[in-house]
Formats: sequence, structure tokens, C-alpha cells
Amino acid sequence: MSYSPTDKQHVLEGRKAHFGGNLSLSYADPLMLVRGWKHYLFDEWGRPYLDAYNNVPHVGHAHPRIQAVAADQLKRMNSNTRYLHPAQTAFAEKVLSKLPDKFEVCYFVNSGTEANELALRLAQAHTGAKGMVTPDHGYHGNTTGAIAISAYKFNKPGGVGQADWVELVEIADDYRGSYRRDDPDRARKFADQVDPAIRSLKNKEHGVAGFIAETFPSVGGQIIPPKGYLAAVYEKIRAAGGVCIADEVQTGLGRLGDYYFGFEYQEVLPDIVVMGKPIGNGHPLGVLVTTKEIAESFDNGIEFFSTFGGSTLSCRIGREVLQIVDDEGLQNNAKTVGGQLLDGLKTLEAKHACVGDVRGMGLFLGVELIRPDGSEATEICTYVKNRMRDHRILIGSEGPKDNILKIRPPLTIEAQDAQMIIGVLDQILGELV
Amino acid sequence: MSYSPTDKQHVLEGRKAHFGGNLSLSYADPLMLVRGWKHYLFDEWGRPYLDAYNNVPHVGHAHPRIQAVAADQLKRMNSNTRYLHPAQTAFAEKVLSKLPDKFEVCYFVNSGTEANELALRLAQAHTGAKGMVTPDHGYHGNTTGAIAISAYKFNKPGGVGQADWVELVEIADDYRGSYRRDDPDRARKFADQVDPAIRSLKNKEHGVAGFIAETFPSVGGQIIPPKGYLAAVYEKIRAAGGVCIADEVQTGLGRLGDYYFGFEYQEVLPDIVVMGKPIGNGHPLGVLVTTKEIAESFDNGIEFFSTFGGSTLSCRIGREVLQIVDDEGLQNNAKTVGGQLLDGLKTLEAKHACVGDVRGMGLFLGVELIRPDGSEATEICTYVKNRMRDHRILIGSEGPKDNILKIRPPLTIEAQDAQMIIGVLDQILGELV
Repeated sequence: MSYSPTDKQHVLEGRKAHFGGNLSLSYADPLMLVRGWKHYLFDEWGRPYLDAYNNVPHVGHAHPRIQAVAADQLKRMNSNTRYLHPAQTAFAEKVLSKLPDKFEVCYFVNSGTEANELALRLAQAHTGAKGMVTPDHGYHGNTTGAIAISAYKFNKPGGVGQADWVELVEIADDYRGSYRRDDPDRARKFADQVDPAIRSLKNKEHGVAGFIAETFPSVGGQIIPPKGYLAAVYEKIRAAGGVCIADEVQTGLGRLGDYYFGFEYQEVLPDIVVMGKPIGNGHPLGVLVTTKEIAESFDNGIEFFSTFGGSTLSCRIGREVLQIVDDEGLQNNAKTVGGQLLDGLKTLEAKHACVGDVRGMGLFLGVELIRPDGSEATEICTYVKNRMRDHRILIGSEGPKDNILKIRPPLTIEAQDAQMIIGVLDQILGELV
Repeated sequence: MSYSPTDKQHVLEGRKAHFGGNLSLSYADPLMLVRGWKHYLFDEWGRPYLDAYNNVPHVGHAHPRIQAVAADQLKRMNSNTRYLHPAQTAFAEKVLSKLPDKFEVCYFVNSGTEANELALRLAQAHTGAKGMVTPDHGYHGNTTGAIAISAYKFNKPGGVGQADWVELVEIADDYRGSYRRDDPDRARKFADQVDPAIRSLKNKEHGVAGFIAETFPSVGGQIIPPKGYLAAVYEKIRAAGGVCIADEVQTGLGRLGDYYFGFEYQEVLPDIVVMGKPIGNGHPLGVLVTTKEIAESFDNGIEFFSTFGGSTLSCRIGREVLQIVDDEGLQNNAKTVGGQLLDGLKTLEAKHACVGDVRGMGLFLGVELIRPDGSEATEICTYVKNRMRDHRILIGSEGPKDNILKIRPPLTIEAQDAQMIIGVLDQILGELV
């Protein structure tokens, strides 16, 4: 569609008039972005921005292979799963090739939200129980069931509150939580919090349907739970009859560099794996993978159908994304450039007192900003994010107090971009003194 | 992607191995369909089928303008609503141009399911109440909240059962329901069933958040509620403090011929309108439209964000679909060809005893098949559907007893196709004697 650089004001007015007030725009003076290429975005005047924020365009903005697949398939047809199409099975086989053998069945839906909703239905159908255990500050989507298991949503002022079939455990944050990195037994201690949660669900006669967690909690603050945490949790949940759901929306598909999925780092095998955001590179797509046994429990007489889920184009795009990650060695690039970023951020931690913690893996990185007393420096975080934008670098922020810089660019990012991020961030942090 | 006509067996085996058993394929010997054009689909051998079933490819399968828009936009970028883009406001303005002035705010999500979930949140946020009233046999989606208001799902064996904050009323089916067409007061009588539902919600202290219904219930059996029904219901719901939600997923965007939305026929103004299926012509897209007041109630401190909802490509495709309906006069075509179909079906009703009722409007049509005693002829319906497929015509079936033939083709269907449907159906019904 055609537009002129001077349309921005009109677009902003239309936005204010016709969009919900709680659909937020990034930055007080919002950006209008009209072009993308790899990890770069371009505004209405053609000015480039380094996109170190958006994990959805996993293989890069405007990837020509995604464009070509869509252009090809939409010439042919785009229909649903009521009929056979080779693209459906080809995508399922590609997804399953990335997972251990125990995973045999795929469900295709239109978002991570829908996939987490389905995970909840599968867990409850398989166990006959209702109760769910989930870490605090988690986020799994924006619909009724997804919100019920998302403390990030239900626990906010104005939120719907905690359902009595949901039990929260502390997020396994070993920088700021109850057990810190100096405690070698912290993984077990965090995991032990699941015990009273299970007891409570049993006392309320909900039983334990399962446990759901972002493998590395993202809105919770780019947290890497200590190794051993999930193994201990899964053991307890399974002993109570529940199933273990790994929400890999933020961590899956090679972003972590060393691991294709976050659960590999935790050395566990979930029963249900949920994928979203990156798997369509922007195309609305969510995927759930599970075992034959759980799929059979769900096949209880109620049909499951998603109008667009598993549509021809969605399947072709999903498969192409996974294939591009392979062909372009993007997992390895995440490891290399992510490592450079992590090293650079560590030097900033040593240099700037307001950097309390640097954590992450591959291109899933967090920088926790603190005040001199160690408390959360929300205002510094906002300042840094806005100053980075002045330098045309887009990054995000997360955490219960919104004091953690979030860096999770498309996997195409290169060494020189990492160098620029570090250099600019160093300069901006220097402005704070 | 490349495939050979002989791949079908392999695809079927992959489907059985890697898809949930409750994701159903149409027909005992399923079809593999690999090409589409307007209202035609083509199987792996190139054999054509008339698609009189699928209401998702609203402007026709493989429409070149949809293909062109996707091909163009994916070269540029496909990002989210955290940044401004002219396509977002252009789509919102196009949607709102089709609606009365009271509707000012759009929400873009990825499916009708997600849009109905959001409608529920908006109704509950606006009223501070929880209770919902909805007709029996309704269907609004496949997630927790959507299922809770979908009797078609929660009331089946194996279903989750009825939530205590949901009250069902009888579907306003004046062919088979409590009040028939010979009763001039049937609209009011059906609507009066809302009174005890409201009382019950108040007694349980849930209050009345709202009423949701497919304007013309589709899975309930292609029902056209008697004129005046919704006006009477809306009056009662509003008097009780609730908001009125019109699910126009099946009926919106010109399919009805005389009306762009079903609520126009009912001469009411809903407070929330939900659109899905056809609005992306197969692209995952759901839209909710509401008033400024309701949008403001929802803006209560909790951010609403959908990763893919309102993405650049989704907005461009949605706008293009609406524009094609206008440019190609498809609403008028639905009226003309739908009228021919309805007339032809009425002649079959007069000729074949097993046709109990023919109903519908535009290209939203139902043919209720009955046994000699007037009861639901499920087995005849299955027979007819399969025989139609032998003649390479795809139609569906619906209704609580699955005895209603459902005809709702893409809006591109032509007079000669309607003639063929009538001719073939006449022949097949003749086989039953």
C-alpha cells in the first residue's frame, strides 16, 4: 500500500481513535516502521533501526524464502485440516524431527495463546484433574484459560485474580529470589515449593492436572532457573499424577544457541511442548507437541478443530522457518553472537554499578538494572531503553518491576551489531553517573 | 512444494501417526486437495470439486489480489502493533465503514475463537458482572472461555459441562423448537426464556455480563431466528445491565445477500460485534468491534496485546478481503445466486418427502432432512453428503442430530453452479425412494 512519510500523524490519530487504549505503543513518541530486512527495521523516512527486541521475526524480517513460500502457496490454495494436504504432514514431520522420540503428535493452532489453552485442555483431559501449578510472574497468553495460568496477568491490579484451581510457586530467580547463587542447593529448594502447592490442590479436591512454565521465564525477567530445577519439579508433579508442560514460545527453535529447546538445558523431557511466536516468523502460528498417550486421552468424543490451525499456508511457512534455521546455521549464530553479547554485557556489569546482573543464553539475554541499594532501578531502565532508541537500537524491558533490559533479536544478528549494542549501551550507562 | 498424485497414502499415514484422533477428516475416504480457484477445489489428480461447503475462502480460493497483497507485504515487513503502520488504521477504518457509527474501536486477533474470548473479557470488564446468557447448541470457539459459552462443546459427552455463570436458553428454532412458525408471537416467546436465565444469574450473584449468540446459529442447524427475537432479548439483557454480543463469524461480510451483517436483519444494534473465518479468506484473523465506552472499561490497567493480532500482513489481507467484496459485488452475488439456490431447494422440498425444511438467506442455507415421522434423518443426511461428494460437490451437515445439509459456498459461486447443486441433489434425493 502507498503512504507518504508525512502520514504518521494521521496514522497516530487513527490509532488513538480506533484502537483500544490498553494496546500499548512502544515509546512515548511512537515509531512508524514500514520496512524490514534481517534484524533491521526502517521508519517512514527510511531511517534504519537495529531490532534487538523482537523475537518473532526469528529468521529475520522480510526473509525472501518466507515471502516466496507465501507467494507460491496463495496462488495454489489455502485450506483447512478437513482435507489432506502434503504440507500438513511435512510440517508435522519437520517439527517432530527436532524433538525426542516420545513426542509423536502435533496440534496446529494460531498463536501461543491458543496452544497454551490447548495444553491446559490436554492436561486436564489426560489426568481427569483440574489443578495447575505454575511459577509466579508467568505469561502464557491472553484468553480465559491462558490468563488463569498467567500470574503476570491475573495478579495485576484490575486482573481477574487467582483461580482456586491454580497454585503459584516462586519464580526460580536465583539473583533476587529466596535462594541465591551462593546456595548450591537452590534448585532443590525452589522445587520444594511445589510440594505445598500439590498438597493444596489435593486438599481442595482439584487434583493435579499439571505444571506449566516458560522454560526460561521471560516477562518474569529473563530468568534462567538453576540447573536441576525442572527435573525436581517434574518428578514431584508426575508423582502427583500431573503432566509437565514446557512453554517454549520464548526459548525454542535455536534461540538459546547451545540448545534447540530450553528443556534440553534443564535435562528434562516434558509431556507437552508449546511453541509460538518465532515459529511463523510473524505468521499467526502456534504448535503443541505431545505423546500418543496424551493425544489419545484428549480424543474422548469431542472433536477438536481450529478453522485456520494447520491451514496449508501456515504449515508451509512453519516448515520453512525451521528449515531456514537449519540451512542458515542460525542456532549456531545465536550461540556465537549471543556469546559475544553476553561477554560484552559482562564487561559493562564490571564497569557500571547500576548493572546488577547479566544473564542469559544465546540470544535470550537480560540485564538487571539496580539502584545503589540493590533495589530495582525501574526509572534507569526506562531511561536506557529510550536513549537506545535515540541511537536507533530497539530493546525491551521486563520483570515484575520492569527493571530488566531484554535483548532477544532475530537470530540473524551479526558480530558488528553486537559490538554496536555494547558500545552504545556503555555510553548511555556512562550518562547516568 | 512438490508432491505426486500417488503421495496421498503416505500423507494419510502421516496424518494418522502425527495428528490428534479428534481432528476429523471429512468423508470416510478423505480428499487430498491441492489447488483452488474461486469456488472450485482440485484434488491430487487435478479432478475438480465444487466447494459449496467452505465459508472461509469468502472471496474465492486463491484470489489473486490476496496473493498479491501477501507477496507485496512480506517483501516489506510483517510486524506487530507496538509500532505504527498505515495498514492498521486503514483496516480499522475499512471495518468501521461497514458498521453503524456507534462502533468506534477495533481489536485484531488471530481467530474467531480469540475474538469471542476477548468479547467475554470486555463484557465482564464493562459490567463488573460475570454471568452470560447464550442459546443452546451455540459455538464460539475452542478455548476455555469460548467453550464455556458454547453449549455445542461443553454439553457433549466428554465435555467440561456447564459453568454456573452460564445460563442456556432454547435456540430460537421455529421449525423444531417450542414455538413454531404458525405462532405469530414466537419471537417474543423464545425471547422470554431469557427472563429466568437472568433471574438465575442474579440469584447466584454472578450478575449479567451479557448475551452472546451467533446471529443466525450455524452448528445449531442453520437457524434463522424469527424477526424480533434479538430485539426482545437485547432489551431484557440491557435492562439487567448486560452487553449484547453478536457473533457474526458465520453471517457477516455480505454472505446474507440482503444484509452485510445478520444483526441488520434482526433490526438491532449489538454492543460488540465479532468477526472471524471469512475476514482473512483463510489467513488467521479475528476482529472485534465495539463502542468507545466498552473499550474504555477494558482499559483498566491491564495491557492487551496479541503478538500476531493486527500484524501488518493480517491488516492488509483483512482490508483487501472487504475491498474485494465491494469491488466484485459479492454481496449482491450472494443475494442473486443464494436466491436461485433457495428457490431450487424449495422445489425439492415440494418434491421430496424427506426434505422437512429449507431455510436460509443469501449463501447461508440449510436443508433439514426428516424421516416420515418428522424426526431427524441423520442417516439420510450422511448418505446425501457422501453421494454429493461422489458427484464432486462438497457440502456440510449440521444440527444437534446432524440432519441438516449446510450450503455456504464462497461468495463467487455462479448461477450454473447453483443449478448443478439443485440438479444433483434432486437426483440423489430420488435415489432414496
